[in-house]
Parts: sequence; C-alpha cells; structure tokens
Amino acid sequence: MILLGIDPGLHYSGFGIIKKEKQKTFLLDYGYLTLKPKLSIPSRLELFYDFFCEKIKKNNVSQLALETPFLGKNAQNFLKLGYLRGILYLLSSQHNIIVHEFSPRQVKRSITGYGGANKEQVARVILRLFPKLNQPKRDDVTDALAVTLCGLWKSKNSYFL
Amino acid sequence: MILLGIDPGLHYSGFGIIKKEKQKTFLLDYGYLTLKPKLSIPSRLELFYDFFCEKIKKNNVSQLALETPFLGKNAQNFLKLGYLRGILYLLSSQHNIIVHEFSPRQVKRSITGYGGANKEQVARVILRLFPKLNQPKRDDVTDALAVTLCGLWKSKNSYFL
Repeated sequence: MILLGIDPGLHYSGFGIIKKEKQKTFLLDYGYLTLKPKLSIPSRLELFYDFFCEKIKKNNVSQLALETPFLGKNAQNFLKLGYLRGILYLLSSQHNIIVHEFSPRQVKRSITGYGGANKEQVARVILRLFPKLNQPKRDDVTDALAVTLCGLWKSKNSYFL
Repeated sequence: MILLGIDPGLHYSGFGIIKKEKQKTFLLDYGYLTLKPKLSIPSRLELFYDFFCEKIKKNNVSQLALETPFLGKNAQNFLKLGYLRGILYLLSSQHNIIVHEFSPRQVKRSITGYGGANKEQVARVILRLFPKLNQPKRDDVTDALAVTLCGLWKSKNSYFL
C-alpha cells in the first residue's frame, strides 16, 4: 500500500508519501509545491496537476488521503480549494486511487490524541515519529504528513513502525 | 475564433460551440452531458474531463465562456461547482484557451436586455437567434448557449449574424 497525503493550496501544497509493507512503514517522499501567485489560476492548476501526476506515477500511489474542507469566512478561498480538490479527484479516477477523507479534527485526534490540537502540537508528534525528517520549513509539510498517517492508520490492518 | 460555453453541473452540463468567421457566426455543436448520480464524484469528474477534452480538440476551441458562481444556500453544491470549474481551468491551460467569465446578470442582460430575466425569457431569445435549433430538452442547453453568445459579443470586434 502506497499512500499520498496532500494539504492542497493555490500557493503552497504540502505532501507526504508513505509505503506500508508487512509491518513496516517507509517515508518515500515529502515536501511542498510552490505555485507563484503571479501566475493565472489555470496555469497554477496545470502545474498542480502535472506535479502530482508525476508523484503518483513515480511512486505507484494506490491511496490518497485528504482533509475535508470547511467553509470559512472567505467563500472565494473555499471555491479555490474546490478547484484543487477537483484536480485531485480527477487524478484519483485516472489512476484508480482510493480516496480517504478526514475532518481536521479527526486528523488532529488521530495524531495527537486531541481534536483541538494546534499546528505546533501536530508538527511535534510528526517530527517524533519521523526522527530522520529534516525540520520542515513549512507547516504544510507536517500537516500533509499528519493526514497521510491518518489515512494509513484508518485503513484496514495497518500498523505503524 | 471558436468559442465553447459551458453551464457545468455534476448531473447535467449544457454546452454550445460557436465559430465566428469574418462577419458570420456558425453553431458548430450544442447539447448536454449527463453524469449518473450513482457514479462516484471522481468518476464523474473524469468523464467530464474526457468529454470536454474531446470537444475542445475536435472543434479546435480557442476560447471558453463561463458564468461566475455564487455561494447559494448550499455550501456543498458551491464546492462541487468548484471541482468542475477546476477541471475546466485545467483544460483551458492544457489547450491554451482564453477564459471569459460573466456574472449571471451580465449574461441575462446581454441576451435579453434585462439582468433579472428568467430562464424562459433567455430560452426564448436563444431559440429566436437559432431558429434551426431543435427545441432543447433542458434549460442547461439554452443557458450554455446564452453564456457562449455573451462571450462572443463581449470579445473584441464580434458581430452576430
């Protein structure tokens, strides 16, 4: 099982790719994609599509984990998140990938034991679980790894380390 | 100039394709795509992508006209419209297509002269402009032709019939 977790954004998108083989878990790749705000939204969506299409093919990804979005104060941001999710759903269908979705509270509870945890608490647990991980420059990476792990743990018969 | 207008939906998506050559306007294609609600959203998005990718390539589409979405009572419908628009933006970038966007009021005003016109009034004008058009079975088709024509008229130096 190879699971890709993404925290998508039109500026920064964090991601993590984890492989589970028998009882062992391997972190295959992680990082973030930067899309320059001066580019048009269609151009950014094409770069986003190409980037994750490449990651999926290269790593033979079979499952995708995402956080469910919620409507905040800004309806336009919610709509833009819809664009990115539409692209990810398209990729999942094109590559026969199973999609898992979790609410932000589910992810935080699954990682820290507490649904109301903040970003720092999540990051601290992630860095403890992956001691070899270089201190990520952005929260997006630890957030993406949190949703990836949540997907791994929620999937049937999964064990960690 | 070949312009594709779409009224996207996860169940029905109306579309129209109009070609302008010198002073003449030709209706190349029109109709609607039906996506069965029993299919998963990722599968529907892939069918939507493939359908319009094919229409774009076959007709050599150079411009795309869309209505701007507005947040109604149902935030989930707004998000789903975001998925479809994300796919259309991706296609526009992949095929170097210029995107025109109009508010629902702009489209109605441009077609009927009145921004508060209802669907029947829009349909009546569309059927008058295209007398050879078979009475479309669904509003989505006349709505899509309305946004296509709006795109045509708003683009520089365009003339109709």
